[in-house]
Parts: sequence; structure tokens; C-alpha cells
Amino acid sequence: MRVICLQENLKSNLNIAQNIIGRNLTLPILNNLLLETENNRLKISATNLEMGINTWTMGKIEKKGSITCPAKILAGFINNLPNKKIELEVKNNNLMIKCENYKANLKGLPAEDFPIIPKIKEPILADIKIGVLKDGLSQVVGSAALSELRPEISGILFVFEKNNLKLVATDSFRLAEKTVFEINKKTDFNQLIVPQRTIQELIRILSEKEGELRIISDGSQVLFETEGVQLVSRLIDGKYPDYQQIIPKDFNLQATIEREQLLNVVRIAGIFSSKINDVKFSLQSGRLEVLSQDPDLGENKSQLEAKIKGKGLEISFNYRYLLDGLGNIATKEIFLGLNNESSAAIIRPVGDDSYLYVVMPIKTT
Amino acid sequence: MRVICLQENLKSNLNIAQNIIGRNLTLPILNNLLLETENNRLKISATNLEMGINTWTMGKIEKKGSITCPAKILAGFINNLPNKKIELEVKNNNLMIKCENYKANLKGLPAEDFPIIPKIKEPILADIKIGVLKDGLSQVVGSAALSELRPEISGILFVFEKNNLKLVATDSFRLAEKTVFEINKKTDFNQLIVPQRTIQELIRILSEKEGELRIISDGSQVLFETEGVQLVSRLIDGKYPDYQQIIPKDFNLQATIEREQLLNVVRIAGIFSSKINDVKFSLQSGRLEVLSQDPDLGENKSQLEAKIKGKGLEISFNYRYLLDGLGNIATKEIFLGLNNESSAAIIRPVGDDSYLYVVMPIKTT
Repeated sequence: MRVICLQENLKSNLNIAQNIIGRNLTLPILNNLLLETENNRLKISATNLEMGINTWTMGKIEKKGSITCPAKILAGFINNLPNKKIELEVKNNNLMIKCENYKANLKGLPAEDFPIIPKIKEPILADIKIGVLKDGLSQVVGSAALSELRPEISGILFVFEKNNLKLVATDSFRLAEKTVFEINKKTDFNQLIVPQRTIQELIRILSEKEGELRIISDGSQVLFETEGVQLVSRLIDGKYPDYQQIIPKDFNLQATIEREQLLNVVRIAGIFSSKINDVKFSLQSGRLEVLSQDPDLGENKSQLEAKIKGKGLEISFNYRYLLDGLGNIATKEIFLGLNNESSAAIIRPVGDDSYLYVVMPIKTT
Repeated sequence: MRVICLQENLKSNLNIAQNIIGRNLTLPILNNLLLETENNRLKISATNLEMGINTWTMGKIEKKGSITCPAKILAGFINNLPNKKIELEVKNNNLMIKCENYKANLKGLPAEDFPIIPKIKEPILADIKIGVLKDGLSQVVGSAALSELRPEISGILFVFEKNNLKLVATDSFRLAEKTVFEINKKTDFNQLIVPQRTIQELIRILSEKEGELRIISDGSQVLFETEGVQLVSRLIDGKYPDYQQIIPKDFNLQATIEREQLLNVVRIAGIFSSKINDVKFSLQSGRLEVLSQDPDLGENKSQLEAKIKGKGLEISFNYRYLLDGLGNIATKEIFLGLNNESSAAIIRPVGDDSYLYVVMPIKTT
């Protein structure tokens, strides 16, 4: 293999690929990137067996071939080179790199030993605008369960409907749902549960891309594909809970509150909250009081104006869940819908029906 | 105690003071800040028994008094308040805080139980411009020994000479010396060894201050004082090594090299270096080659132009020490002075005699 390409192009693709590589002692080739020529491009691949990434870099292919070499050291070296032409050449299972007055020689492992990243030969499930998908995923990804005790909720649910895509995540204490409209659905396939780690990786990749993303799945794997990059991941096998039933539709108390102010008050209350992170909301005619106390440190109370319909209520929440939900919203005001001290509350951006956040209260007594 | 002051002023002093507070389980009052009225100001103090900080905030003192209360929670609360008037009041050993629609009540401990921060009643040792001292300390502080196996080199040496102050730090593998001139020496006192942690704290405090710093010492404690802030610290007892003798004065090889380029080349070599962090310099007529290799990963070689006087030499260094030294220099070119592969090398900014960095080579064979 002998390839010449620009540092800038190579660097960006190396960084996309190497991010999923951990430190694998039992299977050292997983610490490596696979480099191979493909038509007139250099293909760089990485896998951690749960997900794989393929990227393609434009370059001059002087000789076909392939090799794998250590990801961190290759990316570290290329990142520090000037933005000039880089020459990559495979010799005796080593990758020789030259760029102006810099030279390196990396020990490789044979490309044949690199795990195969699955190819999914199915029709396109949907096309979707990258910007809206990335923003939508960012609003829900943090609400998925961190543990895999219940694997089905450790991922993000994609529900493909006729003209929209619903993105859902929950850890059973809170739930986020975002509806994304700029989607072009192409088959009848309708649900995927994608691991949280894959979605974090996808958000990272998409933040540097524009245009459309293709989604392809065979039911056990999913492929996200855009110009020059593919992300392939296993799907989570399981039945996502019927989450619609826990979203309250009617409310005994409806409040409209300025978001920034509420965020600040909840943040302050968090400083004083006890070990279970509880802060107490007390809502009545025209105002919200937020209280918290730590028996050893002290207590605090803040007041906010709020437009309130319905009768007064006291209810406690984990302030971290509130901060997460409020942090995913960008509107000036939020709607808070409550029923009683022990049933789920809903938070919605005022004037934007595409997002909702459900949070369970803490029963304090 | 009843005091009214502005959030902005209080916040800045709380943050200066609370930074030295760790998490002390055996002596809980060390987690607290001492607040007390002093003339027309609110004095806030913190101590970790190694060093203490006093700050003074302007305010309206409506009732004299004092209290101690948990530092992190007090600073956390005040930081999140709007920049408005804050009312602080002591009631039944609690600190009540009010600011617009925010209220808090912090459990206090009696001011009498707070450890005394020593007062040093000695004449002023020296006055010095804050900017030059802060910059000078930043150039040496990272070279002090991290362990306290040899306590005398775990601190930064201050040598007060007639018209200048020398700041020195070494961990026996490398040494940094900075000479600072804008100093007004007032007594005959001439050496202090100040703990590294104190210097890090001093740099942090000075980065928000201007004007002059007063240095006062009784030989066992030192006081750094500027407008509204005092930092008091124990000194390190011991004899600093006679470091001048290890600074080479004559060289068999003198090189002048562009600093940014050298930094980049050393950084790259670091990626490939083995466990002992060694990178090899090979200098001869007009050029420097930097080489490194890790037996498992590969090797690299970079070339730089260098003006070289004297005969060629190969010498190995710990690349981290080189990065530290080069990072402390801002000039376009550096001077590198060498004698042989096993004796100390010197790095100096070209055109600035106030700084020098000595680094011991690694004997690789």
C-alpha cells in the first residue's frame, strides 16, 4: 500500500474512527485501526465489537494494499503534523509515514486478522436531516438507563411513524421524548433500540457533518451512513416498555414558569439538598417556592413567579433530573403539569410540542 | 452579626478563600469559613493548617459579630445569586442569607473554635510588582519535587538579592531559575523555601490582582499581602541544595533552535517514546534530529534546522521535562547548551537572561 493524502483530511477521519477504541489487552488488534485502499480512497476502520466505524479519505492511491496499526499513536502522530501532504506506505508489515521533515514507522498487524465490521444489505429505512436528528438525540440521550440491568431501557428507542420519528429514552425515573419531522421513511420497519454509547458516538460524528443521514437496519444491526462515514452498531434485543401510558394527559395543576429562573433556583436548591437529592416544590396562586434542606448543613428557600391554574400542591423531585430536563429545553418558558405528590409530572417547552420530559416525584414521607 | 454587601464582591472573596479547603473529616471546622466583622469590612478566613487566607469585603456593618459555616455550600449558594445586595445575619449560631427572592439558613460552628491563622509581626521583607512575580513563579513552580522525601526541594526557593529576587525550583532531574527585578528589598533577610502548594495558591490569587505584593516573614512563616487579601503559609525548614554548582557555564556544543518547532518535534517524539519517556537528540552541523522508539509500537524521527557551534553529540532526555521547560519560555528561539551525553543541559530563551532551565539527560546504555 502506498497512499498520499492531506494531513487535514486524514486527521479528521482518524479522530472520528479512533474515538471508539478502548484499551483492549485480550485482543490487541482492537487497539488498531484498519487502513485499506478502496477505489481511489483510503478507508479507515475501527471496531470495539459492539460498534464499528468506517471512514473514507480522498487521496492519491499509488499502490493498493492494507494494514492495521495502533490507533492512538497513529492519530497522535498525524494530529501533530503540519497540514501538508502525508505519504503512507506499507513495508514488511510496518506503516511508514512521511511528512516534510517528520518520519515515523509504526508496527502493524495483518489486515486479515482485523474483525469484520458487518455490512447490512437491506433497503434504506429512512433518510433524515442531520441537524434535526443530532439536536433531537442530544435532548434525549442523557435520560437512558446507565445500567444494563434492564437492557431494553439502556438504549434510545427510535419509533418510525408515517411522517415523523420519535426518539425516546428513560431510566424509569424520568423519560424524554422528542419528535423529529424532517424524515423520509422508506420501508415498513418501525422500531429500533440503539445502545446509548452508539448514540453518543453518532452525535459526535454528526456534529461535524451536514446534509442527510441514511438509516439502514436488518433488525439486529443498524447502519448510520453519511458522506464519507459509516457507523454500524448492534441493536438492543428486547421489548421497549409501553411508555405512552405513563405520560399524563390531564393535570390538576398547570404552571407556566420562566425556564432560566427555574433552572437557577433548582441549581441553588441542589446545593442544599440531602443525600437523596430531593428538592421540594410548593406551588400556589401565582408563585412557586423551591425548598431544600440538608440536616447537617442548613436549608434554603427561593421564590419564583409562576402562572398557576388549579389548586396548590407540594411535591418533591430529584433536582438532578429536573436540571437534565430543563437543560434540554431552550424556550423562554416551560409548562409544568402535575396531578398529585406521588404521580408523574410533565415538563414541556411552551410553544414547542415536539419535546416532553416526564419525571417521577420523590416520596419524602 | 449583620452585614450587607454586594454579591459580586462577596463571591470573589469567597472563591479565593474556599479554594484551600479540602474535605476534613477529623476536624469539621476546617471545612468552614470564618466570617467576622472588622471595622467597616467583612473578613472571611480559611485555613488548612498549612496555610491560611484572609480576605476583606467592603459592606455595611449593621451589627458586629462572627460565625463559621460550611465553605463549599456558602460559596455555592452565593455564586448562584444575582449580583444584588446580600444580607448576612447570624442568629442562634446559624447564618441567615437573603438576596431578593432567595433565602438560606446555614448551620454554623462558633467562631471561637476556628484555628488561629498566625499573624506575622515583622517588618516588610520586600515589595514586588504582582505581574512580574506571578509570571516568574509560573515559570518555575512546576519544577519542584512532588514528593516530600526531600522536603527542602518540595518547595520554591526565594533568594532575595540586593536588586533582584531569584525564584528556583528543582526535583533533582531538572531545575528552573527565574530572576525578577522589580523588587524593593527592605531587610537583610535573604532566603525562604515556600511549599509548592502555597505558590500555586499565590499564583491563583495574584492572577486577579494588580499593584504590589508585600512579603513578610519571621523565618518559620511567610505572609503575602496585597489589597484585601493575605496568604499566610508555613515555610519549609531545611537547607536548599547549592544549586548554582550544577548549572553548567561552558559548553562543548551550543545550539540555537526555533522554540515552537522544537516543542512540536518533542511532543511528537513523546508519542513514540518508551516507558522511561526517553527521546534522543542527535545534533550535528546545522541540524537537530529527534528520535524516539517504543519496541512494541514503532519509532519516529524528525529533523529541525539548528544553528550549531561545537562538535556533534547524541543525548537522550525525558521528553516531559523538555516540554515543561520549553513551555515556560515565550521567545521565538531558545539556546541549548550541552557538554556530553551524561552531563546537564541548559535551555535559555534567546535574548532573555532572566530565565534558565537545566535538565539532566537519561543514560540509555
